Amino acid sequence: MSKLWQKTTNVNELVESFTVGRDTEFDAQMAAFDVLGSLAHTRMLQSIDLMSTEDLELVQRELKNIYADIQKGNFTIEPGVEDVHSQVEMLLTQRIGDAGKKIHSGRSRNDQVLVDLKLFFRHELQQVVEETQLLFNQLITLSEKYKDVLLPGYTHLQVAMPSSFGLWFGAYAESLVDDLELILAAYKITNKNPLGSAAGYGSSFPLNRTMTTQLLGFESLNYNVVYAQMGRGKTERIIAQALSSIAATLSKMAMDQALYLSQNFAFVSYPDTLTTGSSIMPHKKNPDVWEIMRGKCNRLQALPTDVAMVTTNLPSGYHREMQLLKELLFPAFAEIKNCLHMATFMLQNVSVNTDILNDPKYAYLFSVEVVNNMVLEGTPFRDAYKQVGLAIEEGKFNPDKTVSHTHEGSIGNLMNAQITEAMNKVVGQFNFEAVDKAVSELVK
Amino acid sequence: MSKLWQKTTNVNELVESFTVGRDTEFDAQMAAFDVLGSLAHTRMLQSIDLMSTEDLELVQRELKNIYADIQKGNFTIEPGVEDVHSQVEMLLTQRIGDAGKKIHSGRSRNDQVLVDLKLFFRHELQQVVEETQLLFNQLITLSEKYKDVLLPGYTHLQVAMPSSFGLWFGAYAESLVDDLELILAAYKITNKNPLGSAAGYGSSFPLNRTMTTQLLGFESLNYNVVYAQMGRGKTERIIAQALSSIAATLSKMAMDQALYLSQNFAFVSYPDTLTTGSSIMPHKKNPDVWEIMRGKCNRLQALPTDVAMVTTNLPSGYHREMQLLKELLFPAFAEIKNCLHMATFMLQNVSVNTDILNDPKYAYLFSVEVVNNMVLEGTPFRDAYKQVGLAIEEGKFNPDKTVSHTHEGSIGNLMNAQITEAMNKVVGQFNFEAVDKAVSELVK
Amino acid sequence: MSKLWQKTTNVNELVESFTVGRDTEFDAQMAAFDVLGSLAHTRMLQSIDLMSTEDLELVQRELKNIYADIQKGNFTIEPGVEDVHSQVEMLLTQRIGDAGKKIHSGRSRNDQVLVDLKLFFRHELQQVVEETQLLFNQLITLSEKYKDVLLPGYTHLQVAMPSSFGLWFGAYAESLVDDLELILAAYKITNKNPLGSAAGYGSSFPLNRTMTTQLLGFESLNYNVVYAQMGRGKTERIIAQALSSIAATLSKMAMDQALYLSQNFAFVSYPDTLTTGSSIMPHKKNPDVWEIMRGKCNRLQALPTDVAMVTTNLPSGYHREMQLLKELLFPAFAEIKNCLHMATFMLQNVSVNTDILNDPKYAYLFSVEVVNNMVLEGTPFRDAYKQVGLAIEEGKFNPDKTVSHTHEGSIGNLMNAQITEAMNKVVGQFNFEAVDKAVSELVK
Amino acid sequence: MSKLWQKTTNVNELVESFTVGRDTEFDAQMAAFDVLGSLAHTRMLQSIDLMSTEDLELVQRELKNIYADIQKGNFTIEPGVEDVHSQVEMLLTQRIGDAGKKIHSGRSRNDQVLVDLKLFFRHELQQVVEETQLLFNQLITLSEKYKDVLLPGYTHLQVAMPSSFGLWFGAYAESLVDDLELILAAYKITNKNPLGSAAGYGSSFPLNRTMTTQLLGFESLNYNVVYAQMGRGKTERIIAQALSSIAATLSKMAMDQALYLSQNFAFVSYPDTLTTGSSIMPHKKNPDVWEIMRGKCNRLQALPTDVAMVTTNLPSGYHREMQLLKELLFPAFAEIKNCLHMATFMLQNVSVNTDILNDPKYAYLFSVEVVNNMVLEGTPFRDAYKQVGLAIEEGKFNPDKTVSHTHEGSIGNLMNAQITEAMNKVVGQFNFEAVDKAVSELVK
Repeated sequence: MSKLWQKTTNVNELVESFTVGRDTEFDAQMAAFDVLGSLAHTRMLQSIDLMSTEDLELVQRELKNIYADIQKGNFTIEPGVEDVHSQVEMLLTQRIGDAGKKIHSGRSRNDQVLVDLKLFFRHELQQVVEETQLLFNQLITLSEKYKDVLLPGYTHLQVAMPSSFGLWFGAYAESLVDDLELILAAYKITNKNPLGSAAGYGSSFPLNRTMTTQLLGFESLNYNVVYAQMGRGKTERIIAQALSSIAATLSKMAMDQALYLSQNFAFVSYPDTLTTGSSIMPHKKNPDVWEIMRGKCNRLQALPTDVAMVTTNLPSGYHREMQLLKELLFPAFAEIKNCLHMATFMLQNVSVNTDILNDPKYAYLFSVEVVNNMVLEGTPFRDAYKQVGLAIEEGKFNPDKTVSHTHEGSIGNLMNAQITEAMNKVVGQFNFEAVDKAVSELVK
Repeated sequence: MSKLWQKTTNVNELVESFTVGRDTEFDAQMAAFDVLGSLAHTRMLQSIDLMSTEDLELVQRELKNIYADIQKGNFTIEPGVEDVHSQVEMLLTQRIGDAGKKIHSGRSRNDQVLVDLKLFFRHELQQVVEETQLLFNQLITLSEKYKDVLLPGYTHLQVAMPSSFGLWFGAYAESLVDDLELILAAYKITNKNPLGSAAGYGSSFPLNRTMTTQLLGFESLNYNVVYAQMGRGKTERIIAQALSSIAATLSKMAMDQALYLSQNFAFVSYPDTLTTGSSIMPHKKNPDVWEIMRGKCNRLQALPTDVAMVTTNLPSGYHREMQLLKELLFPAFAEIKNCLHMATFMLQNVSVNTDILNDPKYAYLFSVEVVNNMVLEGTPFRDAYKQVGLAIEEGKFNPDKTVSHTHEGSIGNLMNAQITEAMNKVVGQFNFEAVDKAVSELVK
Repeated sequence: MSKLWQKTTNVNELVESFTVGRDTEFDAQMAAFDVLGSLAHTRMLQSIDLMSTEDLELVQRELKNIYADIQKGNFTIEPGVEDVHSQVEMLLTQRIGDAGKKIHSGRSRNDQVLVDLKLFFRHELQQVVEETQLLFNQLITLSEKYKDVLLPGYTHLQVAMPSSFGLWFGAYAESLVDDLELILAAYKITNKNPLGSAAGYGSSFPLNRTMTTQLLGFESLNYNVVYAQMGRGKTERIIAQALSSIAATLSKMAMDQALYLSQNFAFVSYPDTLTTGSSIMPHKKNPDVWEIMRGKCNRLQALPTDVAMVTTNLPSGYHREMQLLKELLFPAFAEIKNCLHMATFMLQNVSVNTDILNDPKYAYLFSVEVVNNMVLEGTPFRDAYKQVGLAIEEGKFNPDKTVSHTHEGSIGNLMNAQITEAMNKVVGQFNFEAVDKAVSELVK
Repeated sequence: MSKLWQKTTNVNELVESFTVGRDTEFDAQMAAFDVLGSLAHTRMLQSIDLMSTEDLELVQRELKNIYADIQKGNFTIEPGVEDVHSQVEMLLTQRIGDAGKKIHSGRSRNDQVLVDLKLFFRHELQQVVEETQLLFNQLITLSEKYKDVLLPGYTHLQVAMPSSFGLWFGAYAESLVDDLELILAAYKITNKNPLGSAAGYGSSFPLNRTMTTQLLGFESLNYNVVYAQMGRGKTERIIAQALSSIAATLSKMAMDQALYLSQNFAFVSYPDTLTTGSSIMPHKKNPDVWEIMRGKCNRLQALPTDVAMVTTNLPSGYHREMQLLKELLFPAFAEIKNCLHMATFMLQNVSVNTDILNDPKYAYLFSVEVVNNMVLEGTPFRDAYKQVGLAIEEGKFNPDKTVSHTHEGSIGNLMNAQITEAMNKVVGQFNFEAVDKAVSELVK
């Protein structure tokens, strides 16, 4: 194994295998971001005279080539190479000689990993936001399409009040707006530059951290170098919490779907291709996709605790197990994006039962409606309440099954336009354009 | 028990005791907020002709009296009264007769609890922010005061690089800035009006939800009424996550403190009154406050999972166990405020050891410094690296123990002003003034 | 505050309040067990000549009086007294003078707390087992009573196969048997004597730890004194895990109950006194008891993580926050016993719907039955499978709705006798008689 | 995809990929156990005349061939084959024709998976026990070897009492004994036969479940078929809890090791090959193995919550996400075995510092010793306490640094023989021989 910090004695192979584990697998996903970091770092090094203009030119040209290769899928961490940073440095040195070695000046592996992780997380969070928007749009579309189809509303799993598919789909859309508030907080915390913190205690080089902050499109920097290192584990935990919020929304929706697909509800239906069944039980439409989604999302809800358990009670300063957080976070991004995607796909294929409320077991849904109408016509609330209660007990309750709710957010006034506006307002605050611009300037 | 929805049969006492549990204890803490909700709701009722101007006047006057009583501590939920809403309604009816009963029109207990919880959480979050600012200020003060006192920096718990008390205290200050980003997200999600969602399916009354939103100082509303109900459990989980982030910062600081107070480090010290000891072991200065804080904060870190476990896989709609979330959240606010307060108090009394680095075991801290200085003077990094390594191996390493780090966020350039500015920027976004103004107008 | 280890300087009151917290509240619950510990410890002290026979006689007589007072409810920790150990010692010294002070010889507060906790937990676990047996018996009774009443069995929440109330109730009974296997493991780990470990590093006194082990009815001892201290936190976590297993069984049962009480299932029913409703919605039978139980039990399922989060990454040796584990464990015992009790109570009042399967939506339950019968009569499985599938698709499926399952554990052969035998076998291994005998000899 | 239950319409590929996920990867690990299940099941089928003697002979011969292939590593689940059961059935049918199809009679995929999982878990638990025993032996060896080397004992991370390497190593050995009590409970719950429960509601075939129980070496059976299915998720959670207990022991030991390897303690040391360092900082001996182990084990401590979160609030009956529990449990077994193995390996290479207590900061360790000796010579405890306290305050404390603790479990009387006997007693209760015997008879 080619390891830059290697002493004369070889590290025992058993140790190597135990401590490295699956790390290169995740490191490979950070390759593009490692190159971005080096592109910015070397421009800064040149600006403070730690790299010659000639060397910078060589290094920049070749890093951009490597970046292009990575984008084309032509990059792997070769067997025996320790990590993504070593692989990039090795490629560089093979191609441009000693100049390649200079990209390491003024930083340690610690802040190099930190900046790679931040850039990777930032990119993944952007994709999560985009997938969330697609699902949001689908939910709003369904809410509008079925706004007049009524559904029983439950409290305590007991039949309670009239609801509608408009309300039901719309509720999950609005839930995603609040979820993105959390993603936004995680993004803001992520989008700060740790580069220049070295091993967590800074450097005697006159680094220009503001310059790399701007070049990499970070909104600000992790100022204090000890805090920059302390962000490891903390950033992961906060991101995990933000993802878990979307996951909780999806899990609840999946539970509703599985329940409403049961023969005991029969509120929604899906094409045979999207459910699984049995030729012996043709009535069965197993909602496997929703069940798997429910399971995956519930597991994601446990993720923040996984992260916290690994990091809790560690004193300040780097500890090796922080590396294991990649195993927790990297697959989580893939999972949540996949779940968002599948939820959108399923909802593009959902059918709703438009004749639910004629079932006699749903008659009592309207008892409160009737009371309220009496109140509107002047009967005191408590009197109307008693009168209707009595009518029901005596079996004389024959409600009119139309619902005319008009207030903000009710069946007749879903306010989907306002919810969409709220979504757009949150998404706008991410300011992805600024990041995209910085990155494209760095690699052009 | 006086219960408004009571049927002819009495609910079995065993059931009552099991289901109500400690709930009235927590309900009492919401009293002021329940009155605020009723003040806004009744003004809205009058505006849509569901309450007469005369009744409104009576109701408003008496609700303000009750509010004043609560502020003076003159309010309890009487034995046999089910909850805070019933207690307020009972007081009102005793004093102004039937008009008091009308405050219930157009809402259900569900949205009344929802709005009370939101107002309570909003108020508590504001207090958390204020306590956080006090701790932040103390940390910045210490960082500035001890910016020139060096400390060993550790990686892997191994002596690694020179650090400073300036960096150490400052790092925790900056950590609190990011923590408040999460508190801000939780606050934004909390500060939306659920009132008017009734039992989670809206109402046939022409409620003006925008009006109550403005009267109560909410920034916006939970539009969709099904989502308003869905916020129960979700709001709590997100708040728990935000509190857990501050808790994680405090826990880490507490671990550092307990370690640094150990005779094996001896970096910090406290007056005897703030530690516990033993007459038989006068050397002992047990850091009980930091240990209890570490424990309380680690427990708070588990809180989001407690909330998630209670709510996961519940289909949409209200379920009774949501009531139990009060038992989880209400004490958590008290705990975190208490911990923030004690951390500030302890740090007001900390002494730091100003002569740490003369201990020979800390000599190697400066090896990287020396390499970097050689690089700055022209030696290639890898060569300098080898040269110093050799000197150390041969016992010829006698470093100069001064540190001159100058870049942003390093020992010589802490950037506490910028960190303070970042803190102020986050706090400004809460816009507490708007809420304070709305509330004071409502009760004046 | 009267504190035996107090130095000349008073511990700051703020510190006192923060570090003691709710601890005396929990300490009071350990009073009887603290006295048991002292009864055994002093007999041992006399046996190794660290206490005179006269002093022993005085001390034993008075400790037994205090024990009797505690049993009668006549014991409180007085304001200003630090903990239960100080309260007992103070009472003793008031009554028999200096001899009372000698009970402290040869132990520290650390192992005194450890042994009190072990004795308390052991006692609580015994009560949990007893409550579990009552619920088990009720479930077996119901399983036998309703063994012939059929119920649809679900997979994926889809109608799948015929089941029965006999199976459903019996399944939860058998689940409790396995839960008690975990309680047994927790009990065995608890039932080992830590007394004599002093502050976690043993003592220079020639203590006879085997003697206190026998006197206190422990099955064995925590031999290694460092391990005895290490058991703090570990015992709590393991007990929490064991309780969480019962909690998971109850939570699942509660979810089934809430679902089956919904109008969309209507499989079970309860008297009005045990559900809550609304005069306006007389059809509603809110399963509040089951919902609260589900919530409490789900919260208990999160308890082991709460414990782990507090203790993880603490180096060996005592740390003050271990005290906080009382706040987690003590209420948990009350909760689980309460839940077990309420579950038994509710099930004593359950009615089952004896005419469920006539609803046409349950016809397909019998498709597999028919296939199996064809196989038993000689048709190859795959052929029978296709034939029936075709009949269903063509609408020609009219199954006979009788079920004749005969194998072990099936509808027609519940094996409740064997399940009961398995329960008795597990309970027998606790050997509660040995403990009861030792305790009664100690106090007589 | 060859799927036995497939309907005319193809399941959408996106759905397939989402729902199957990584499942075949884990299924492959169950191959041997799937064959064992079929070997037992078919012998039972023949005994109840559901399979002819000729078919049984063919099936048994070929299943044993497949079993042998699996043991030699010659088995894979081919692309397009859905799961391990289908792969085995396919191989069988290719080789012996239609007789191969008959192994499916009288069971469903549900109970086939259940029995495979139980057999797999049982096997893994046995390996965990074996690795635990190796670590236990190494700890006892070290405890005996270094029983006379003293070490400071800490409370509150403050220097407190004399301890020894004998105590320290021995404590972790004894911890493993209690951990195996939990593993034993998990094993007993695992080692019960679910086969014959079909889809969770039993079968109309006259299956002989007692026969398969005996053939597969299960100690007993999951009697009630609904409970047999309910064991899915529950078995996994209980196993995860048991593994987390070993993990907690390893994590604590790893934290001690990392701390004691710090220059601020310097109690233990390792060869350079087993630590990582830096040529620039030759003093550094980063304890990467212990840090990674701490991280992996802390992650394992969060595992039970991961499992609980996936399964909580699911009503009884199978749900598809139960499949995801394989992703949680299967790697956990590999991790814990790996960690146990590495801990043993590291401890085979540990060096201990035999001259720790001469450092003056450890002098006060002996204050309690001196007090106790005075008490043994007749001075009342409180008087001795004050006298020594005064001597210390006046700087006149010069203790004799020999320790003569003699009681059970103390420095001078470690009781490692008794601890070993306790270990053997627990291990004996697993009765692995019975299982090994049954399995070898089944495949011979």
